[in-house]
Amino acid sequence: MMLITFDNPVFVTYAIACLLMSLKYLIQGWATVGAMIRTDSGLLNPEDLQKTPFNPNPREEQLKPAESVARSRRMQRNDTENLPPFFAAGLLFVLTEPSLLIAQIVFYGYVAARLGHTLAYATGQIHEIRAGFFSVGSLLNMAMAGWTLFVLAA
Amino acid sequence: MMLITFDNPVFVTYAIACLLMSLKYLIQGWATVGAMIRTDSGLLNPEDLQKTPFNPNPREEQLKPAESVARSRRMQRNDTENLPPFFAAGLLFVLTEPSLLIAQIVFYGYVAARLGHTLAYATGQIHEIRAGFFSVGSLLNMAMAGWTLFVLAA
Amino acid sequence: MMLITFDNPVFVTYAIACLLMSLKYLIQGWATVGAMIRTDSGLLNPEDLQKTPFNPNPREEQLKPAESVARSRRMQRNDTENLPPFFAAGLLFVLTEPSLLIAQIVFYGYVAARLGHTLAYATGQIHEIRAGFFSVGSLLNMAMAGWTLFVLAA
Repeated sequence: MMLITFDNPVFVTYAIACLLMSLKYLIQGWATVGAMIRTDSGLLNPEDLQKTPFNPNPREEQLKPAESVARSRRMQRNDTENLPPFFAAGLLFVLTEPSLLIAQIVFYGYVAARLGHTLAYATGQIHEIRAGFFSVGSLLNMAMAGWTLFVLAA
Repeated sequence: MMLITFDNPVFVTYAIACLLMSLKYLIQGWATVGAMIRTDSGLLNPEDLQKTPFNPNPREEQLKPAESVARSRRMQRNDTENLPPFFAAGLLFVLTEPSLLIAQIVFYGYVAARLGHTLAYATGQIHEIRAGFFSVGSLLNMAMAGWTLFVLAA
Repeated sequence: MMLITFDNPVFVTYAIACLLMSLKYLIQGWATVGAMIRTDSGLLNPEDLQKTPFNPNPREEQLKPAESVARSRRMQRNDTENLPPFFAAGLLFVLTEPSLLIAQIVFYGYVAARLGHTLAYATGQIHEIRAGFFSVGSLLNMAMAGWTLFVLAA
């Protein structure tokens, strides 16, 4: 039976979650760019202080990121620390042939947790809220990976 | 012939390696959390200095990470710099239909090298040991990717 | 019909792009190592200042990275922020069965944009050039992910 195909509803669930998370991953980069433009700060390289059409008035202080830029970069780092193993383990979890309901709970639950984390981070909620969303996402991901390993070992 | 299936022992070898590395990737995040709790330091955001049940006594110095927190974050960064191309290239390498023995050497050798790197990093071994494990893992990964490209070009 | 197979030219296009980007991802790590050796700087850990055969003359200042080391690390971070969602979304895009021409434009266009970014970054070109290559790559990746989502929703 073919499992890695858009005819398999479980795989489609994975694909939707994976694509939403891929977009989120990339949009966060543009959020950083937007914060850099709004605050005229957060440049990373010496050559970025050259006078160009986009930077007509270069100043040393542009190398210091405003809090909004630094925050968006921390959010990007959090994505790099969490999403790649979701992409990888999620695909393998599909091959354990979970029920569609379980797959939807795990995959869409993960997406919801990560978007909750993003919202909490972007709006500066207290640590407990952000950490709660992080934890749900990370534990769902680890449960998927652990369960798939268990199925392979059984 | 179906290759991306748990009926293919070479793919199962990839899957086990990929899942172990996914778990390692995520557990390192929890190691950072654990080090933050033990040292009461390493907070990243201004809002983390609000007084909450989990942080009853907030202080500016909590923003400075203890060495154990910073170390675990460096280990996370090293994972982000190495594991995603393993997930990707490993899957494609399976499609070159290597012998099971070769697949086990490459995939489990990679896992062993990365776990050796983790152990050496966590226990502060000299640079040569840590770099040795890093090198074995990175070279195995590059060999897989290079070989698969060669097969596709041939 | 089997799509995830080297018999499918669209998948082969993805595989070649994915493998080239995996190699680039890993080679950047070795570029950092090379810059560390050339500048005798950029060590990350206290234990790296122990006297060993590879570091016969350890000095505190070795912990400060030279610009070439810091630059290569920024390039690695940029890879971690961009390539994983390409690996993931690219695979799913193959399953939408695009024409071979479209697949080649998207996948090889992405590779060209990322290599252009690498070259611009490594040689310190002005921000506009580097940002232009970044933008093309990121937008192609987002277009792939968005299109695949659209196909799944339709």
